[in-house]
Amino acid sequence: MSPDRIPVVERIMGANDALAAQNREFLGARGVHAVNVLAAPGAGKTSLITRTAVALRGRRSVAAIEGDIASSIDAEAVRAVGVPVVQINTGGNCHLDATQVQRALEVLQLDGVDLLFIENVGNMICPVGFDLGEHTRVAISSIPEGDDKPHKYPGIFSSVDALVINKIDLLPWIPFDVGEFRRLVQSLNPRIAMFEVSCTTGAGLDQLVEWLIERTRRA
Amino acid sequence: MSPDRIPVVERIMGANDALAAQNREFLGARGVHAVNVLAAPGAGKTSLITRTAVALRGRRSVAAIEGDIASSIDAEAVRAVGVPVVQINTGGNCHLDATQVQRALEVLQLDGVDLLFIENVGNMICPVGFDLGEHTRVAISSIPEGDDKPHKYPGIFSSVDALVINKIDLLPWIPFDVGEFRRLVQSLNPRIAMFEVSCTTGAGLDQLVEWLIERTRRA
Repeated sequence: MSPDRIPVVERIMGANDALAAQNREFLGARGVHAVNVLAAPGAGKTSLITRTAVALRGRRSVAAIEGDIASSIDAEAVRAVGVPVVQINTGGNCHLDATQVQRALEVLQLDGVDLLFIENVGNMICPVGFDLGEHTRVAISSIPEGDDKPHKYPGIFSSVDALVINKIDLLPWIPFDVGEFRRLVQSLNPRIAMFEVSCTTGAGLDQLVEWLIERTRRA
Repeated sequence: MSPDRIPVVERIMGANDALAAQNREFLGARGVHAVNVLAAPGAGKTSLITRTAVALRGRRSVAAIEGDIASSIDAEAVRAVGVPVVQINTGGNCHLDATQVQRALEVLQLDGVDLLFIENVGNMICPVGFDLGEHTRVAISSIPEGDDKPHKYPGIFSSVDALVINKIDLLPWIPFDVGEFRRLVQSLNPRIAMFEVSCTTGAGLDQLVEWLIERTRRA
Protein backbone atom coordinates (compact mmCIF):
# COMPACT_ATOMS: atom_id res chain seq x y z
CA MET A 1 0.00 0.00 0.00
CA SER A 2 1.50 3.34 -1.04
CA PRO A 3 1.81 6.00 1.69
CA ASP A 4 -0.38 8.52 -0.17
CA ARG A 5 -3.51 6.42 0.48
CA ILE A 6 -3.51 6.75 4.24
CA PRO A 7 -4.66 10.38 4.52
CA VAL A 8 -7.60 9.62 2.20
CA VAL A 9 -8.79 6.74 4.36
CA GLU A 10 -8.38 8.75 7.55
CA ARG A 11 -10.43 11.58 6.13
CA ILE A 12 -13.29 9.24 5.21
CA MET A 13 -13.33 7.54 8.63
CA GLY A 14 -13.10 10.89 10.41
CA ALA A 15 -16.07 12.21 8.45
CA ASN A 16 -18.07 9.05 9.20
CA ASP A 17 -17.35 9.29 12.93
CA ALA A 18 -18.42 12.95 13.03
CA LEU A 19 -21.71 12.15 11.26
CA ALA A 20 -22.26 9.13 13.50
CA ALA A 21 -21.91 11.37 16.57
CA GLN A 22 -24.52 13.72 15.06
CA ASN A 23 -26.89 10.80 14.46
CA ARG A 24 -26.46 9.58 18.04
CA GLU A 25 -27.19 13.05 19.42
CA PHE A 26 -30.21 13.49 17.11
CA LEU A 27 -31.67 10.15 18.21
CA GLY A 28 -30.83 10.63 21.88
CA ALA A 29 -32.57 14.03 21.91
CA ARG A 30 -35.76 12.29 20.71
CA GLY A 31 -35.52 9.46 23.22
CA VAL A 32 -34.78 6.90 20.51
CA HIS A 33 -32.35 4.05 21.28
CA ALA A 34 -30.66 2.78 18.11
CA VAL A 35 -29.51 -0.84 17.65
CA ASN A 36 -27.13 -1.66 14.79
CA VAL A 37 -27.70 -5.30 13.75
CA LEU A 38 -24.71 -7.05 12.12
CA ALA A 39 -24.53 -10.56 10.67
CA ALA A 40 -23.66 -12.74 7.69
CA PRO A 41 -26.21 -13.09 4.87
CA GLY A 42 -29.09 -15.32 5.95
CA ALA A 43 -28.31 -15.34 9.68
CA GLY A 44 -31.78 -13.98 10.44
CA LYS A 45 -31.45 -10.20 10.86
CA THR A 46 -34.85 -9.38 9.38
CA SER A 47 -36.57 -12.24 11.20
CA LEU A 48 -35.07 -11.07 14.49
CA ILE A 49 -36.33 -7.53 13.91
CA THR A 50 -39.86 -8.61 12.94
CA ARG A 51 -40.18 -11.18 15.77
CA THR A 52 -38.83 -8.74 18.35
CA ALA A 53 -41.00 -5.86 17.15
CA VAL A 54 -44.11 -8.04 17.50
CA ALA A 55 -43.03 -9.21 20.98
CA LEU A 56 -42.42 -5.59 22.09
CA ARG A 57 -45.92 -4.42 21.09
CA GLY A 58 -47.55 -2.35 23.83
CA ARG A 59 -44.24 -2.01 25.69
CA ARG A 60 -41.90 -0.32 23.20
CA SER A 61 -42.55 1.36 19.86
CA VAL A 62 -40.17 0.17 17.13
CA ALA A 63 -38.95 1.62 13.81
CA ALA A 64 -36.38 0.25 11.39
CA ILE A 65 -33.83 1.17 8.76
CA GLU A 66 -33.06 -1.69 6.36
CA GLY A 67 -29.72 -1.79 4.56
CA ASP A 68 -29.19 -3.90 1.45
CA ILE A 69 -27.18 -3.76 -1.74
CA ALA A 70 -30.38 -4.12 -3.76
CA SER A 71 -34.16 -4.77 -3.42
CA SER A 72 -36.64 -3.80 -0.72
CA ILE A 73 -37.87 -7.23 0.32
CA ASP A 74 -36.56 -6.87 3.87
CA ALA A 75 -38.27 -3.50 4.29
CA GLU A 76 -41.53 -5.02 2.99
CA ALA A 77 -41.28 -7.83 5.57
CA VAL A 78 -40.74 -5.30 8.35
CA ARG A 79 -43.57 -3.04 7.19
CA ALA A 80 -45.86 -6.07 7.05
CA VAL A 81 -45.69 -6.33 10.87
CA GLY A 82 -46.60 -2.64 11.24
CA VAL A 83 -43.12 -1.20 11.79
CA PRO A 84 -42.30 2.19 10.14
CA VAL A 85 -39.32 1.51 7.90
CA VAL A 86 -36.92 3.10 5.42
CA GLN A 87 -34.91 0.97 2.99
CA ILE A 88 -31.37 2.03 2.10
CA ASN A 89 -29.98 0.47 -1.09
CA THR A 90 -26.22 0.82 -1.00
CA GLY A 91 -25.90 0.07 -4.72
CA GLY A 92 -23.00 -2.32 -4.24
CA ASN A 93 -21.47 -0.97 -1.05
CA CYS A 94 -20.72 -3.67 1.48
CA HIS A 95 -21.83 -1.84 4.65
CA LEU A 96 -24.00 1.05 5.81
CA ASP A 97 -22.33 4.34 6.73
CA ALA A 98 -23.39 7.26 8.92
CA THR A 99 -24.27 9.48 5.92
CA GLN A 100 -26.80 6.94 4.63
CA VAL A 101 -28.35 6.61 8.08
CA GLN A 102 -28.53 10.40 8.41
CA ARG A 103 -30.49 10.61 5.15
CA ALA A 104 -32.83 7.85 6.31
CA LEU A 105 -33.43 9.68 9.60
CA GLU A 106 -34.59 12.73 7.62
CA VAL A 107 -37.52 10.77 6.21
CA LEU A 108 -38.29 8.26 8.98
CA GLN A 109 -41.22 9.11 11.26
CA LEU A 110 -39.72 8.94 14.79
CA ASP A 111 -42.50 10.48 16.95
CA GLY A 112 -43.04 8.16 19.90
CA VAL A 113 -40.45 5.65 18.72
CA ASP A 114 -38.38 4.07 21.53
CA LEU A 115 -36.25 1.62 19.62
CA LEU A 116 -34.74 1.94 16.14
CA PHE A 117 -33.30 -1.18 14.54
CA ILE A 118 -30.70 -0.50 11.85
CA GLU A 119 -30.25 -3.68 9.81
CA ASN A 120 -26.81 -3.56 8.24
CA VAL A 121 -25.78 -5.19 4.94
CA GLY A 122 -25.25 -8.97 5.29
CA ASN A 123 -21.50 -9.10 5.92
CA MET A 124 -19.44 -10.15 8.95
CA ILE A 125 -16.49 -7.90 8.12
CA CYS A 126 -16.97 -4.45 6.60
CA PRO A 127 -19.84 -3.11 8.78
CA VAL A 128 -17.71 -3.59 11.92
CA GLY A 129 -15.54 -0.52 11.22
CA PHE A 130 -18.38 1.93 10.62
CA ASP A 131 -20.13 3.67 13.51
CA LEU A 132 -23.66 4.60 12.37
CA GLY A 133 -24.57 6.55 15.52
CA GLU A 134 -26.09 3.54 17.27
CA HIS A 135 -26.25 3.13 21.05
CA THR A 136 -26.10 -0.66 21.00
CA ARG A 137 -24.54 -3.15 18.63
CA VAL A 138 -25.94 -6.66 18.22
CA ALA A 139 -24.49 -9.45 16.10
CA ILE A 140 -26.26 -12.63 15.04
CA SER A 141 -24.56 -15.99 14.49
CA SER A 142 -26.72 -18.81 13.20
CA ILE A 143 -26.22 -22.50 13.92
CA PRO A 144 -25.80 -23.57 10.25
CA GLU A 145 -22.82 -21.18 9.87
CA GLY A 146 -20.80 -23.45 12.15
CA ASP A 147 -19.15 -22.96 15.53
CA ASP A 148 -15.76 -21.92 14.12
CA LYS A 149 -16.70 -18.37 13.10
CA PRO A 150 -15.11 -16.54 16.10
CA HIS A 151 -11.72 -17.92 14.99
CA LYS A 152 -12.15 -16.54 11.51
CA TYR A 153 -14.05 -13.28 12.05
CA PRO A 154 -12.91 -12.11 15.50
CA GLY A 155 -13.64 -8.42 14.81
CA ILE A 156 -17.43 -8.67 14.78
CA PHE A 157 -17.55 -10.64 18.04
CA SER A 158 -15.24 -8.15 19.78
CA SER A 159 -17.22 -5.11 18.68
CA VAL A 160 -20.76 -5.91 19.85
CA ASP A 161 -22.74 -5.55 23.08
CA ALA A 162 -24.74 -8.71 22.47
CA LEU A 163 -24.66 -11.84 20.33
CA VAL A 164 -27.82 -13.63 19.30
CA ILE A 165 -27.23 -17.32 18.53
CA ASN A 166 -30.09 -17.93 16.09
CA LYS A 167 -31.71 -21.03 14.54
CA ILE A 168 -31.26 -23.21 17.63
CA ASP A 169 -34.21 -25.26 16.33
CA LEU A 170 -31.71 -26.75 13.83
CA LEU A 171 -29.35 -28.06 16.56
CA PRO A 172 -30.63 -31.66 16.24
CA TRP A 173 -29.45 -31.81 12.62
CA ILE A 174 -26.24 -29.77 12.64
CA PRO A 175 -23.04 -30.37 14.65
CA PHE A 176 -22.49 -27.20 16.72
CA ASP A 177 -20.88 -27.13 20.18
CA VAL A 178 -22.81 -24.29 21.87
CA GLY A 179 -20.74 -24.41 25.08
CA GLU A 180 -17.41 -24.24 23.27
CA PHE A 181 -18.75 -21.52 20.96
CA ARG A 182 -19.86 -19.41 23.94
CA ARG A 183 -16.46 -19.83 25.63
CA LEU A 184 -14.69 -18.75 22.45
CA VAL A 185 -16.89 -15.66 22.04
CA GLN A 186 -16.42 -14.76 25.71
CA SER A 187 -12.62 -15.02 25.33
CA LEU A 188 -12.86 -12.36 22.58
CA ASN A 189 -15.38 -10.20 24.45
CA PRO A 190 -15.77 -10.87 28.19
CA ARG A 191 -18.67 -8.41 28.69
CA ILE A 192 -20.87 -9.63 25.82
CA ALA A 193 -24.48 -10.66 26.47
CA MET A 194 -25.52 -13.85 24.69
CA PHE A 195 -28.98 -15.15 23.78
CA GLU A 196 -29.88 -18.50 22.23
CA VAL A 197 -33.01 -18.12 20.12
CA SER A 198 -35.02 -19.48 17.24
CA CYS A 199 -36.82 -16.86 15.20
CA THR A 200 -38.77 -19.73 13.62
CA THR A 201 -40.19 -21.27 16.82
CA GLY A 202 -39.83 -18.19 19.05
CA ALA A 203 -37.72 -20.10 21.60
CA GLY A 204 -35.50 -17.88 23.74
CA LEU A 205 -36.87 -14.57 22.44
CA ASP A 206 -38.30 -13.53 25.83
CA GLN A 207 -34.88 -12.96 27.39
CA LEU A 208 -33.69 -10.91 24.43
CA VAL A 209 -36.86 -8.82 24.54
CA GLU A 210 -36.39 -8.08 28.28
CA TRP A 211 -32.77 -7.09 27.64
CA LEU A 212 -33.87 -4.67 24.88
CA ILE A 213 -36.58 -3.22 27.15
CA GLU A 214 -33.98 -2.64 29.87
CA ARG A 215 -31.69 -0.83 27.41
CA THR A 216 -34.48 1.40 26.10
CA ARG A 217 -35.76 2.43 29.54
CA ARG A 218 -36.25 6.18 29.50
CA ALA A 219 -34.65 8.23 32.27
CA MET B 1 -17.65 10.93 -2.41
CA SER B 2 -15.13 13.61 -3.31
CA PRO B 3 -13.77 13.55 -6.89
CA ASP B 4 -10.14 13.14 -5.78
CA ARG B 5 -10.80 9.54 -4.64
CA ILE B 6 -11.58 8.16 -8.07
CA PRO B 7 -8.03 8.06 -9.49
CA VAL B 8 -6.82 6.22 -6.37
CA VAL B 9 -9.45 3.49 -6.73
CA GLU B 10 -8.76 3.13 -10.47
CA ARG B 11 -5.08 2.71 -9.82
CA ILE B 12 -5.68 -0.07 -7.27
CA MET B 13 -8.08 -1.97 -9.54
CA GLY B 14 -5.79 -1.56 -12.55
CA ALA B 15 -2.86 -2.96 -10.57
CA ASN B 16 -4.97 -5.88 -9.34
CA ASP B 17 -6.11 -6.75 -12.88
CA ALA B 18 -2.53 -6.69 -14.16
CA LEU B 19 -1.35 -9.01 -11.37
CA ALA B 20 -4.36 -11.28 -11.90
CA ALA B 21 -3.43 -11.63 -15.57
CA GLN B 22 0.12 -12.58 -14.52
CA ASN B 23 -1.26 -15.20 -12.10
CA ARG B 24 -3.49 -16.68 -14.81
CA GLU B 25 -0.57 -16.90 -17.21
CA PHE B 26 1.72 -18.41 -14.56
CA LEU B 27 -0.86 -21.08 -13.71
CA GLY B 28 -1.82 -21.77 -17.32
CA ALA B 29 1.83 -22.32 -18.27
CA ARG B 30 1.99 -25.04 -15.59
CA GLY B 31 -1.27 -26.70 -16.65
CA VAL B 32 -3.03 -25.63 -13.45
CA HIS B 33 -6.71 -24.67 -13.62
CA ALA B 34 -7.63 -22.24 -10.83
CA VAL B 35 -11.10 -22.07 -9.26
CA ASN B 36 -12.01 -19.03 -7.12
CA VAL B 37 -14.62 -20.11 -4.53
CA LEU B 38 -16.92 -17.35 -3.24
CA ALA B 39 -19.63 -17.56 -0.57
CA ALA B 40 -21.04 -16.17 2.65
CA PRO B 41 -19.47 -17.30 5.95
CA GLY B 42 -20.50 -20.84 6.77
CA ALA B 43 -21.90 -21.74 3.35
CA GLY B 44 -19.48 -24.67 3.12
CA LYS B 45 -16.49 -23.51 1.07
CA THR B 46 -13.92 -25.59 2.96
CA SER B 47 -16.19 -28.66 3.07
CA LEU B 48 -16.74 -28.43 -0.66
CA ILE B 49 -12.99 -28.27 -1.29
CA THR B 50 -12.15 -31.21 0.99
CA ARG B 51 -15.04 -33.39 -0.27
CA THR B 52 -14.24 -32.63 -3.91
CA ALA B 53 -10.49 -33.19 -3.46
CA VAL B 54 -11.17 -36.64 -1.98
CA ALA B 55 -13.61 -37.51 -4.79
CA LEU B 56 -11.05 -36.42 -7.43
CA ARG B 57 -8.29 -38.68 -6.08
CA GLY B 58 -6.59 -40.66 -8.83
CA ARG B 59 -8.20 -38.51 -11.51
CA ARG B 60 -7.02 -34.96 -10.74
CA SER B 61 -4.37 -33.64 -8.38
CA VAL B 62 -5.62 -30.77 -6.20
CA ALA B 63 -3.93 -27.92 -4.28
CA ALA B 64 -5.53 -25.06 -2.35
CA ILE B 65 -5.05 -21.49 -1.19
CA GLU B 66 -7.17 -20.63 1.85
CA GLY B 67 -8.16 -17.01 2.49
CA ASP B 68 -9.33 -15.83 5.91
CA ILE B 69 -9.14 -12.72 8.03
CA ALA B 70 -7.54 -14.73 10.82
CA SER B 71 -6.63 -18.31 11.87
CA SER B 72 -5.51 -21.32 9.83
CA ILE B 73 -8.26 -23.78 10.73
CA ASP B 74 -9.49 -24.05 7.15
CA ALA B 75 -5.98 -24.76 5.86
CA GLU B 76 -5.57 -27.45 8.54
CA ALA B 77 -8.82 -29.12 7.43
CA VAL B 78 -7.64 -29.11 3.82
CA ARG B 79 -4.17 -30.43 4.70
CA ALA B 80 -5.81 -33.19 6.72
CA VAL B 81 -7.17 -34.73 3.50
CA GLY B 82 -3.71 -34.62 1.90
CA VAL B 83 -4.07 -31.46 -0.19
CA PRO B 84 -1.03 -29.10 -0.40
CA VAL B 85 -2.22 -25.78 0.96
CA VAL B 86 -1.16 -22.21 1.75
CA GLN B 87 -3.16 -20.06 4.17
CA ILE B 88 -3.46 -16.32 3.49
CA ASN B 89 -4.50 -14.24 6.49
CA THR B 90 -5.80 -10.92 5.19
CA GLY B 91 -5.52 -9.29 8.61
CA GLY B 92 -8.94 -7.65 8.40
CA ASN B 93 -9.32 -7.31 4.65
CA CYS B 94 -12.70 -8.48 3.37
CA HIS B 95 -11.53 -10.25 0.20
CA LEU B 96 -8.45 -11.79 -1.40
CA ASP B 97 -6.57 -9.83 -4.04
CA ALA B 98 -4.21 -10.84 -6.85
CA THR B 99 -1.09 -9.74 -4.92
CA GLN B 100 -1.87 -12.07 -2.03
CA VAL B 101 -2.48 -14.95 -4.44
CA GLN B 102 0.77 -14.19 -6.24
CA ARG B 103 2.69 -14.44 -2.96
CA ALA B 104 0.96 -17.72 -2.15
CA LEU B 105 1.88 -19.11 -5.59
CA GLU B 106 5.55 -18.42 -4.82
CA VAL B 107 5.49 -20.93 -1.95
CA LEU B 108 2.86 -23.45 -3.09
CA GLN B 109 4.19 -26.70 -4.57
CA LEU B 110 2.44 -26.94 -7.96
CA ASP B 111 4.30 -29.81 -9.67
CA GLY B 112 1.70 -32.17 -11.13
CA VAL B 113 -1.22 -30.12 -9.79
CA ASP B 114 -4.24 -29.96 -12.13
CA LEU B 115 -6.71 -28.02 -10.06
CA LEU B 116 -6.08 -25.17 -7.62
CA PHE B 117 -8.94 -24.13 -5.35
CA ILE B 118 -8.67 -20.57 -4.04
CA GLU B 119 -11.05 -20.20 -1.09
CA ASN B 120 -11.95 -16.54 -0.77
CA VAL B 121 -12.86 -14.73 2.47
CA GLY B 122 -16.44 -15.46 3.60
CA ASN B 123 -18.30 -12.54 2.04
CA MET B 124 -20.93 -12.33 -0.71
CA ILE B 125 -19.97 -8.81 -1.76
CA CYS B 126 -16.36 -7.62 -1.77
CA PRO B 127 -14.62 -10.63 -3.40
CA VAL B 128 -16.82 -10.24 -6.51
CA GLY B 129 -14.87 -7.21 -7.79
CA PHE B 130 -11.40 -8.73 -7.51
CA ASP B 131 -9.98 -10.97 -10.22
CA LEU B 132 -7.37 -13.28 -8.65
CA GLY B 133 -6.19 -14.82 -11.89
CA GLU B 134 -8.65 -17.72 -11.72
CA HIS B 135 -10.00 -19.56 -14.76
CA THR B 136 -13.31 -20.49 -13.18
CA ARG B 137 -15.46 -18.83 -10.54
CA VAL B 138 -17.78 -20.86 -8.33
CA ALA B 139 -20.21 -19.50 -5.73
CA ILE B 140 -21.91 -21.47 -2.98
CA SER B 141 -25.38 -20.71 -1.59
CA SER B 142 -26.55 -22.82 1.32
CA ILE B 143 -30.14 -23.74 2.09
CA PRO B 144 -30.22 -22.13 5.60
CA GLU B 145 -29.28 -18.73 4.09
CA GLY B 146 -32.73 -18.59 2.51
CA ASP B 147 -33.96 -18.45 -1.08
CA ASP B 148 -34.09 -14.63 -1.28
CA LYS B 149 -30.36 -14.02 -1.63
CA PRO B 150 -30.28 -13.39 -5.42
CA HIS B 151 -32.58 -10.39 -4.85
CA LYS B 152 -30.22 -8.91 -2.32
CA TYR B 153 -26.75 -9.86 -3.62
CA PRO B 154 -27.20 -10.00 -7.40
CA GLY B 155 -23.52 -9.30 -8.14
CA ILE B 156 -22.13 -12.62 -6.93
CA PHE B 157 -24.70 -14.67 -8.87
CA SER B 158 -24.01 -12.70 -12.07
CA SER B 159 -20.24 -13.08 -11.84
CA VAL B 160 -19.77 -16.87 -11.50
CA ASP B 161 -19.55 -19.83 -13.88
CA ALA B 162 -21.26 -22.18 -11.46
CA LEU B 163 -23.40 -22.09 -8.34
CA VAL B 164 -23.33 -24.89 -5.79
CA ILE B 165 -26.55 -25.09 -3.76
CA ASN B 166 -25.20 -26.71 -0.60
CA LYS B 167 -26.76 -28.32 2.51
CA ILE B 168 -29.69 -29.85 0.62
CA ASP B 169 -29.86 -32.42 3.45
CA LEU B 170 -31.49 -29.63 5.51
CA LEU B 171 -34.38 -29.11 3.05
CA PRO B 172 -36.87 -31.10 5.19
CA TRP B 173 -36.46 -28.59 8.04
CA ILE B 174 -36.06 -25.26 6.26
CA PRO B 175 -38.48 -23.52 3.88
CA PHE B 176 -36.57 -23.03 0.60
CA ASP B 177 -38.13 -23.08 -2.87
CA VAL B 178 -35.35 -24.64 -4.97
CA GLY B 179 -37.22 -24.25 -8.28
CA GLU B 180 -37.98 -20.57 -7.73
CA PHE B 181 -34.41 -19.97 -6.49
CA ARG B 182 -32.95 -21.59 -9.62
CA ARG B 183 -35.23 -19.51 -11.87
CA LEU B 184 -34.15 -16.33 -10.08
CA VAL B 185 -30.44 -17.19 -10.41
CA GLN B 186 -30.90 -18.06 -14.09
CA SER B 187 -32.60 -14.71 -14.74
CA LEU B 188 -29.44 -13.01 -13.41
CA ASN B 189 -27.04 -15.37 -15.21
CA PRO B 190 -28.51 -17.47 -18.04
CA ARG B 191 -25.30 -19.48 -18.67
CA ILE B 192 -24.63 -20.51 -15.06
CA ALA B 193 -24.18 -24.20 -14.17
CA MET B 194 -25.99 -25.25 -10.99
CA PHE B 195 -25.41 -28.20 -8.68
CA GLU B 196 -27.50 -29.28 -5.70
CA VAL B 197 -25.26 -30.98 -3.15
CA SER B 198 -24.79 -31.89 0.47
CA CYS B 199 -21.19 -31.85 1.65
CA THR B 200 -22.43 -33.68 4.77
CA THR B 201 -24.07 -36.67 3.04
CA GLY B 202 -22.18 -36.43 -0.27
CA ALA B 203 -25.42 -36.22 -2.27
CA GLY B 204 -25.04 -34.59 -5.68
CA LEU B 205 -21.24 -34.30 -5.54
CA ASP B 206 -20.69 -36.67 -8.51
CA GLN B 207 -22.06 -34.22 -11.06
CA LEU B 208 -19.96 -31.37 -9.69
CA VAL B 209 -16.86 -33.56 -9.78
CA GLU B 210 -17.47 -34.51 -13.43
CA TRP B 211 -17.95 -30.84 -14.32
CA LEU B 212 -14.63 -29.96 -12.65
CA ILE B 213 -12.87 -32.83 -14.44
CA GLU B 214 -14.24 -31.57 -17.77
CA ARG B 215 -12.94 -28.05 -17.04
CA THR B 216 -9.47 -29.28 -16.07
CA ARG B 217 -9.01 -31.56 -19.08
CA ARG B 218 -5.54 -30.92 -20.51
CA ALA B 219 -5.25 -30.13 -24.21
